[in-house]
Amino acid sequence: MSNRKLRAGMIGGGIGAFIGPVHRMALELDNDAELVGGAFSRDPEKSRESAARLFLDPQRVYHDYRVMAEREAKLPEDRRLDFVVIVTPNSTHFEIARTFLEHGFHVVCDKPVALNLEEAKTLQRIASEKKRLFMITHAYTGYPMVKQAKQMIKNGELGDILKVVVQYFQGWVPFRLQGKAKGDKAWKFDPKISGPSLTVADIGTHAENLAHYITGLEIEELCAQATSFWAEGGLEDDADVLIRYRGRAKGVLSVSQMLTGEHNGLTIRVYGSKKSLVWKQEQPETLLVRDLNRFDTILYKGGTDLYEEANAAKKLPSGHPDGLIAAFANLYRAFIQTIWQQLQGEQVSGGDYPNIADGVRGMAFVETVLESAASELKWIKPKV
Amino acid sequence: MSNRKLRAGMIGGGIGAFIGPVHRMALELDNDAELVGGAFSRDPEKSRESAARLFLDPQRVYHDYRVMAEREAKLPEDRRLDFVVIVTPNSTHFEIARTFLEHGFHVVCDKPVALNLEEAKTLQRIASEKKRLFMITHAYTGYPMVKQAKQMIKNGELGDILKVVVQYFQGWVPFRLQGKAKGDKAWKFDPKISGPSLTVADIGTHAENLAHYITGLEIEELCAQATSFWAEGGLEDDADVLIRYRGRAKGVLSVSQMLTGEHNGLTIRVYGSKKSLVWKQEQPETLLVRDLNRFDTILYKGGTDLYEEANAAKKLPSGHPDGLIAAFANLYRAFIQTIWQQLQGEQVSGGDYPNIADGVRGMAFVETVLESAASELKWIKPKV
Amino acid sequence: MSNRKLRAGMIGGGIGAFIGPVHRMALELDNDAELVGGAFSRDPEKSRESAARLFLDPQRVYHDYRVMAEREAKLPEDRRLDFVVIVTPNSTHFEIARTFLEHGFHVVCDKPVALNLEEAKTLQRIASEKKRLFMITHAYTGYPMVKQAKQMIKNGELGDILKVVVQYFQGWVPFRLQGKAKGDKAWKFDPKISGPSLTVADIGTHAENLAHYITGLEIEELCAQATSFWAEGGLEDDADVLIRYRGRAKGVLSVSQMLTGEHNGLTIRVYGSKKSLVWKQEQPETLLVRDLNRFDTILYKGGTDLYEEANAAKKLPSGHPDGLIAAFANLYRAFIQTIWQQLQGEQVSGGDYPNIADGVRGMAFVETVLESAASELKWIKPKV
Amino acid sequence: MSNRKLRAGMIGGGIGAFIGPVHRMALELDNDAELVGGAFSRDPEKSRESAARLFLDPQRVYHDYRVMAEREAKLPEDRRLDFVVIVTPNSTHFEIARTFLEHGFHVVCDKPVALNLEEAKTLQRIASEKKRLFMITHAYTGYPMVKQAKQMIKNGELGDILKVVVQYFQGWVPFRLQGKAKGDKAWKFDPKISGPSLTVADIGTHAENLAHYITGLEIEELCAQATSFWAEGGLEDDADVLIRYRGRAKGVLSVSQMLTGEHNGLTIRVYGSKKSLVWKQEQPETLLVRDLNRFDTILYKGGTDLYEEANAAKKLPSGHPDGLIAAFANLYRAFIQTIWQQLQGEQVSGGDYPNIADGVRGMAFVETVLESAASELKWIKPKV
Repeated sequence: MSNRKLRAGMIGGGIGAFIGPVHRMALELDNDAELVGGAFSRDPEKSRESAARLFLDPQRVYHDYRVMAEREAKLPEDRRLDFVVIVTPNSTHFEIARTFLEHGFHVVCDKPVALNLEEAKTLQRIASEKKRLFMITHAYTGYPMVKQAKQMIKNGELGDILKVVVQYFQGWVPFRLQGKAKGDKAWKFDPKISGPSLTVADIGTHAENLAHYITGLEIEELCAQATSFWAEGGLEDDADVLIRYRGRAKGVLSVSQMLTGEHNGLTIRVYGSKKSLVWKQEQPETLLVRDLNRFDTILYKGGTDLYEEANAAKKLPSGHPDGLIAAFANLYRAFIQTIWQQLQGEQVSGGDYPNIADGVRGMAFVETVLESAASELKWIKPKV
Repeated sequence: MSNRKLRAGMIGGGIGAFIGPVHRMALELDNDAELVGGAFSRDPEKSRESAARLFLDPQRVYHDYRVMAEREAKLPEDRRLDFVVIVTPNSTHFEIARTFLEHGFHVVCDKPVALNLEEAKTLQRIASEKKRLFMITHAYTGYPMVKQAKQMIKNGELGDILKVVVQYFQGWVPFRLQGKAKGDKAWKFDPKISGPSLTVADIGTHAENLAHYITGLEIEELCAQATSFWAEGGLEDDADVLIRYRGRAKGVLSVSQMLTGEHNGLTIRVYGSKKSLVWKQEQPETLLVRDLNRFDTILYKGGTDLYEEANAAKKLPSGHPDGLIAAFANLYRAFIQTIWQQLQGEQVSGGDYPNIADGVRGMAFVETVLESAASELKWIKPKV
Repeated sequence: MSNRKLRAGMIGGGIGAFIGPVHRMALELDNDAELVGGAFSRDPEKSRESAARLFLDPQRVYHDYRVMAEREAKLPEDRRLDFVVIVTPNSTHFEIARTFLEHGFHVVCDKPVALNLEEAKTLQRIASEKKRLFMITHAYTGYPMVKQAKQMIKNGELGDILKVVVQYFQGWVPFRLQGKAKGDKAWKFDPKISGPSLTVADIGTHAENLAHYITGLEIEELCAQATSFWAEGGLEDDADVLIRYRGRAKGVLSVSQMLTGEHNGLTIRVYGSKKSLVWKQEQPETLLVRDLNRFDTILYKGGTDLYEEANAAKKLPSGHPDGLIAAFANLYRAFIQTIWQQLQGEQVSGGDYPNIADGVRGMAFVETVLESAASELKWIKPKV
Repeated sequence: MSNRKLRAGMIGGGIGAFIGPVHRMALELDNDAELVGGAFSRDPEKSRESAARLFLDPQRVYHDYRVMAEREAKLPEDRRLDFVVIVTPNSTHFEIARTFLEHGFHVVCDKPVALNLEEAKTLQRIASEKKRLFMITHAYTGYPMVKQAKQMIKNGELGDILKVVVQYFQGWVPFRLQGKAKGDKAWKFDPKISGPSLTVADIGTHAENLAHYITGLEIEELCAQATSFWAEGGLEDDADVLIRYRGRAKGVLSVSQMLTGEHNGLTIRVYGSKKSLVWKQEQPETLLVRDLNRFDTILYKGGTDLYEEANAAKKLPSGHPDGLIAAFANLYRAFIQTIWQQLQGEQVSGGDYPNIADGVRGMAFVETVLESAASELKWIKPKV
């Protein structure tokens, strides 16, 4: 058990940012870490003001992440940051993450972890060499009922997994382009900042990660269509992927950010030879189990006879919604516990949080989908 | 307006059959037609007994549909059948339908209308030459809220249609093969009776027809995977189809009969530039409308300000479920009204029921999906 | 087994009426009875025209129910009506039902069966003396999953029944009074026609009957508030009832027809010591079973391992909605089978349809609620 | 704006407690306060260990709340606690709250705030005399869509409020008594600790508070039944209340903790002359609006065109569940802002958090329900 809170620093997430504050809430929720400093903006004034609102020690506020890495690395062990949290736009993830890994810090980074597979593999190599832990924030895997789903499959309750159907449907692209939205998403349409993919990188990686986390299945090959309906800069905002997993299972995965009226509709359906599962992110507290014998069971977070992994992940009893921040906090807790084990001198491997191997697999997924969509699939015309 | 009930004859649908009685209920529900005879089985005794249970005139009970066609055609006009209903296994549809068309009867036939596109086109040609009406029973298009959806799109309420997502998920194949089911579905696994396709023909045609009915979109080309997980005889029981519609819209359609725990889960989502629609067959009384501005509207059958087509299709007020038989009856009512118009000497074209053109389009869909799935799609492997 | 369809006559239900056609569809759906005549209106012309649209024999069309009763009673046995269906306004139920009972016909009557308890008891006495069967159309008891609920409780699956919560929420009163509705409901506000109660008589009797049918519980005593928010004529359009059942169970029953936006929201929750049930009329195909151990089970019409009573009541397989007409038809089928047994000389008692004893219990419920609401309950004021 | 985090102390909430950690998470979530000390248990060792796990300064850990109040009151202003959080069993609330008020601290206290109305009024008087702020944690009022509901009604969108239906259904009593549960709820059955009411005090006060918060309605008088089905000690575990509000509106409120299979099912339905609302605590992110014109609208947290009060209360965008801790945090944020305003010398009154007036009204509700249930209501027997 830890005898102090771990110390975290943040890069990005200044005033007006959305995801920065969520990370702060999540990392502090379980009372095992605290944010003590950061480079919240490249603008010194904005970084200082952001830090002031968080009542942080001005000594530990920076505007250049390189300076931050250098100075923090030199602090005595009892003051030094334990890990950093990178919540900047995609194109900067790679350099920032590399810098902090090389200065000896554990790293938390938003997905996509890099602009391409090559970069992701580089980060994986450096983290491994430096023995630093690296978490990618696929936060949906932190929900208790996602953990229940994973354990049910792992323990064979579904029989053989035969089909996986994943949909991740958002609608912010037309909302934004029709003048409804404000905020900081403009950079998402710029390939220089966002990278070669909009939607597959932004939420396709979440969808792929969730399916992999729950089922353990690996994609053997895929075949995809991707479309740019609204997105500026030619980036895709919609894609459908046919999947052959290693083994017998097939899959179909659809992601889109241009589906009018959708909010954050991530749904996964896993069909086995004995039972099936349905989980919906917008109603995360329940897990629907469908039975060969034609009845359904609804399992509730906090219910009886759930797997220990599901129970350990809940904050509140059944009927009291935990929410996404709590799921997010579960990632941090697992990450922090693993850091703590390493600090104690234990040999660590894994830990129940998404790591750089997930980041590499995610970038490979993005590149494969784009390559398939760009190639000439053998499309066939009906002969009516 | 009619001054008598139309007279219907049935081929198939004897004792123990599932769909025959449903047709009888549907065709009589609106009190504009009645079943007066038929060839309910090739077994004379079984056909007679089936008819006796329906209190039908023994003079009009047959066991050979050819004899039935000949004799009924010779009856005086005021006794002669107006139309026949074909509810036999797939492989017999073509010959039976042709026979009755050629003897001058209007025809109702279960889907798939034939074993291949060629046969379907032949039936279309004969029906046209003989000026006979031909209904295919895609019954889901008879629901009031499906008609509401169609009219909303037709009247531009959704803006441009950009994406169509259709899922038709059943689970009877593993249920049956694991010894849970009884009944008459064994022939469905026999390609000689069922044809070259199990699931795409059986329910893929429903899914395609529903999407076409609601959106009016035509498939430009498609790309598919199809799998035989459980089905005997090598027929596919699962398929996913990527679709490019004529114009801008894209689609993804998944059909399966091997998804453990599913019942009759037909869901269609249509996304437009202004609004989107979700309709679920298992809860057919409501239509979900999603708005660019991030709220949803639930429309109810029997609610206020629905389109006339939706109102005319309801049997009961809102909150009083109509059910599938009532939807089925709406097909019959439109078909019967069209027959009646023709009897009055009117020039008829169309009528709000699925016709042989839908049957042809359906068979083309089946063949295209199978061809695509059998061809070597350009599948691509992730490079992790 | 019957060797002919039973012959039914209708009183009321002429052109423009809502419930008459529903009865016709329901009584003919299972092909064991047919409508052959009736007095559809007191206006001879309207009655004739209504019959013509149904293609009925003009010889059997009347405008005076007394004449109808007399003439039909004199027909030879092989032409005579087997039963009549009374779908007129409430105030006429008693006289019409009495007349046909006394002429030897079995009777189907809409609820409330009479204007007061005294009349209902009179009908019960006459039916008993004349050995005539009497069905009240509490149609919701015909749904398969209602029968499943009843059997689960009867077989002890819920343990001791402790609490029953029933809500029947409609919203047509304000809808109508704000000028939105058309149609034939004006008489419902007239105490001379409707009787001393609007909502408790109209739907409270359904709610009470459903609770009684499912649980078998008898009301020991009750305590109620009733309010006339909108209803013309001073009739109540809203009531809440606290109930003490015989034995340990308690209940709370709320009915209203002035709840803006409600359609036909009848929901029953039955809580036992081991399990609980929730059934909603607007989604009648499923039954929610809640378990002491904090998971739910969803049972589906047509699913596996349901009670025989539930299976026998379904028309279509799971996932194919049956709807209210099919539930209604189940009442008729049970009634018709019981008539047929009596025709065969069997001693009959009961049969799975709501009978005159239900009608008597319903009228007693109405009178008790009104009496309680009119009395000075011991209301207590908070002492803030 | 504040220039520091406020300092909070906790009484109760030691290792193994449920609600203490929730308060800590909630009060720190928005980064405007922090827990710095407390008396976590009357057992010195347990209190110390609890504090150690929270990495608190051992100097500020107590086991006697009186000592805590005295010592903390003497600390210099820049170290002194700003407020205390009382999360002990019911019977101790009064004395602890009084003590801290009298020593000049603002107070947060779990509901019920006291064992009877008299005590609640005493606390109200002292808080007023001492000008100390007093928050009761009716946390459900912190949800964004509850605030939306309140504003819609306040702004007349529903027209006149006519009927309020509240259900708060839990099932932990039989779960616990049948040996399924563990944990610290045994004291709830002991009237000496819990007070004269189990369920009405425990969750009836939440239900009443929610209805009052949303509608602004005041109870004129009520009439209730209360039952002890399972609860030890004779305390009620189930109650139904008929309500006459001041003005025209009527209500029915049911609360129970013995309903097998229920989790934390708090549902409120408010019916107006124009529109109605339904909100369910277990799915708190949406608000159902039902319209006189027979369609529904689903509003989403984070959607467009919500009231500012709803928007200000969200942590995450639509589709990303906030959960109950976030709602709880909103109470704390409002309370903390009000304290801060007072610290700045502003005259404060109100603030959007439940206060001691709510506590007084809640205790009056409990006493009135118990008095009504104990009195002889005029129960009436059906005369079947």
